[in-house]
This record gives sequence, C-alpha cells and structure tokens, in this order.
Amino acid sequence: MVSLKEDKLMKIDIIVSADDIKTEKIKDKTVVVIDMLRATSVITTAISNGCKGVIPVLTVDEAAAIVRNSKEEFMLGGERNALKIEGFHYSNSPLEYTIESIQGKTLVMTTTNGTKAIKGCVGARNILIGAMINAKATANRIVDLNKDVVIVNAGTNGEFSIDDFLCSGYIIDCLIKLVKAQLTDIAVTSHYIYKNNEDIHSFIKYASHYKTITKLGLLADLEYCCTKDIINIVPEYKDGIIT
Amino acid sequence: MVSLKEDKLMKIDIIVSADDIKTEKIKDKTVVVIDMLRATSVITTAISNGCKGVIPVLTVDEAAAIVRNSKEEFMLGGERNALKIEGFHYSNSPLEYTIESIQGKTLVMTTTNGTKAIKGCVGARNILIGAMINAKATANRIVDLNKDVVIVNAGTNGEFSIDDFLCSGYIIDCLIKLVKAQLTDIAVTSHYIYKNNEDIHSFIKYASHYKTITKLGLLADLEYCCTKDIINIVPEYKDGIIT
Repeated sequence: MVSLKEDKLMKIDIIVSADDIKTEKIKDKTVVVIDMLRATSVITTAISNGCKGVIPVLTVDEAAAIVRNSKEEFMLGGERNALKIEGFHYSNSPLEYTIESIQGKTLVMTTTNGTKAIKGCVGARNILIGAMINAKATANRIVDLNKDVVIVNAGTNGEFSIDDFLCSGYIIDCLIKLVKAQLTDIAVTSHYIYKNNEDIHSFIKYASHYKTITKLGLLADLEYCCTKDIINIVPEYKDGIIT
Repeated sequence: MVSLKEDKLMKIDIIVSADDIKTEKIKDKTVVVIDMLRATSVITTAISNGCKGVIPVLTVDEAAAIVRNSKEEFMLGGERNALKIEGFHYSNSPLEYTIESIQGKTLVMTTTNGTKAIKGCVGARNILIGAMINAKATANRIVDLNKDVVIVNAGTNGEFSIDDFLCSGYIIDCLIKLVKAQLTDIAVTSHYIYKNNEDIHSFIKYASHYKTITKLGLLADLEYCCTKDIINIVPEYKDGIIT
C-alpha cells in the first residue's frame, strides 16, 4: 500500500463518453483515456514496439495535410467505421503495429472515437493512454503522479460503451490495491461490473461495438485487446504528440 | 408477450443525469424520469393519495411566486440539501404525503435534482414519473404508449447516481418481460446490476446519496422508496403539471 501525501484519499471518477468531457472535471487531474477496441490498444502497442510518437488527429484531411506539409516521413493509421482508410498504411488493428513495421517511425492516427477523446482531454494535468493490455502499468503510473484521477471512456459515437467501462473497472481494481481511494457512484459501478466478470469475455460480449468488430471477423484483434497486462509501458499525450 | 406494431423492437436507452439530457435523444420518445431518493417517490405517493396535481419548479422563489399570485390554495413541498425548506408545508419525505394531508390539494414542488430532470424532458412525447414503488405500472404504461423509451435518471448534482440506475434496471427487467426490446450498452449494464441485486439494498448501499440520507436518519424513507410496486399508478407531466 503506497501512502499518498498527507494520507489524502485519491478520488476516482469516470466520464463515460468523449461527448461528455467537461473541462472543470479534468482540470489539474490525471486523466486516462480508454478506447480499448481498439485505438488505445493500437497506440500502446505501437509505442511499446518502438514507434517514435503518435500524432492523433480528428480528420482524414488533417492527417493528409500533416504528411503533405512535412519533410519527415510519417506513417498513417486509423479507421472509419472500423475499416482501414484508403491510402493509409495501417488499419486500426493493433496486430499490424509490429516492431518490424513501426519501430523508429512516427504515426499520424485518426479514429472515430479514440482520437477525439484524447484531444478532448487537453487541460488535464497528465493524459495517459490506457487499455486492458497495459492496465496494471497505468495504475502504477497514476499512483506515481499522485493526483485525483478521471478515467475518460472514448465510448462509441458519443455513447456509453461496455468495453471501455469494463476496462475502467479493471484499472480501478488495480488502483485500489495500491492506494486508499474514494470512488464516485459511476466508478463503484464500473468496478462492480469488472469484479463480476474478471474474465472480461463474459461481459464484453454484450457491447454493441464488440458485436460490430465480431461481424467484421476481427477475432484476433478482440482476443489481443482483451488480454490483461501484456505491455508494461504507459503512453502519454503532451503538446500534440503521444510518446 | 405483447406484440409491438410491425413486430418492431422497442429501443431502451438511459440518460444518467439531468445534466446530460439532450433534446435529440428524447424527441418523440416515451421518457421516464427517475429520482427514487426521493422526488419521484414523493410525486407518485402524492398523486396516488389523491393530490390534484404537482407543479415542479426549479427555485424556491418560483414556488413562492406561484403561491403569491394565485387565488387557488397550494401546498409547498420539497428540499434543499435533503432538508425541508423554511416556510414549506412538506419536506421531501414521501411518508408525509398521506391521504389525510394531500387529498384534493395541489402541490408546488422544488427539489435539487428531480424537478430539474422533469422540466428538462420537455420535448419528449410523454413524460412519465417512475420510481421503485411504481416500477411495474411504469413498464405497463410504456408498453401501452408503444414508443421507444429513454429512462432519464435525475442523478445527484449532475452526477450518475447508483440509486436511480438500479431503479432503471428494475423497470427494464419488467419491460423485457412484456416486449421484445433492443437495449443500448448503458441499458444492458443497468439491467445486469439489477439482476445481480434484486433485493435492492445489496447495491443501493454503495450510492453516495443513500449515505447522505442515512446520515440524516431518514431510514423509514429509504425503506419505503426501496419497496417494489406498492403503487399501481403512473403520474405524467404535461403542460407544466403532473397528474
């Protein structure tokens, strides 16, 4: 049990969709952005495999402009409607971001929910990138930063998404083993859902976005994104780039 | 199993706080407003005990102005910080709204979360008042109205509140026994929480607002508000008054 300064309780809250981010809720806090299916799993995998940095952008045009106006060589990744964007190097599958393909490169990325959530969190003290694959590492980093934390779920098209909520519950479970914490009602609910579904699959199967990805046959992606703690780093977004 | 027109699935969604109501989400839908601790339990009890109508208002001044400017005799009810307002006839305890005290009278009511949620739902097709005490009746009324439904949780001070979420889960449980339905991720989660806590107390005890009311010693209110289906009517808000 790490003891917080002055034995203060760490407040843990959740915002359930990118559309619900309010500046006053995240100001001076540690924020963790979660879009486990699949943007934050992609980012975590890419950085872990040696990617120099990920630049999240909101539109395909914005991504194209960065590539056009710079001397540096960028790779383009992301999705629209869960599918690869025409002319891009990578889709939104974390399995494409191997050491061989991404090491030493900078990625410009645009996705429907995840990149919007990340950019919406500007104003927080620290913006961490979390997923099931690096949940324990994320909890450790939150404790190091020693501030109240808001877990921001990207959600799906502005709506609450079961996958991100379940992932939040797992991060909270890791956190409360490390610090004394005070959970809001939504944080309690998320933790409860996780504790009753520690295998992840028994509850994530109800997520509408899980069904979308299943229909597209992306089962290997799902399996990968639902695996706990296979990566030990926590990417952070600062000054327009995730490293 | 009642069969919906053209065998269409009824869509069931939840908005988790009065602050998150968006007009496009409720337009042409059946809306159920829930503030089970305690505003919608009060309203349901009052109407069931013969109250002629409940006028929800946002401020104490607004309530006072209605009483001052009208020849009709009004009763005043509600709370600030869960306590009775100075000069009001009733607090926010449903147990005060007996047949003896409320029959034939019109109530002007202001509370911190519930009245705000009710007034925020203008634009919906029908605005029903739901609570644990009339959940089954509410589900039946939703089926009669034969429209997609959005359950609006008043929440607590703009935040997600476990009590209202659990009550939503019970109404959904009643509903899906009557109609074929399509649940959003948040509706699935609420129903899951209810199914794992059908006794209510095992989960509502985690609600921060439940703790507030417990600290004030209002245990009889809690017991009453957590009792399922003791009332068989469903109040409705229309043109500024609930009847």
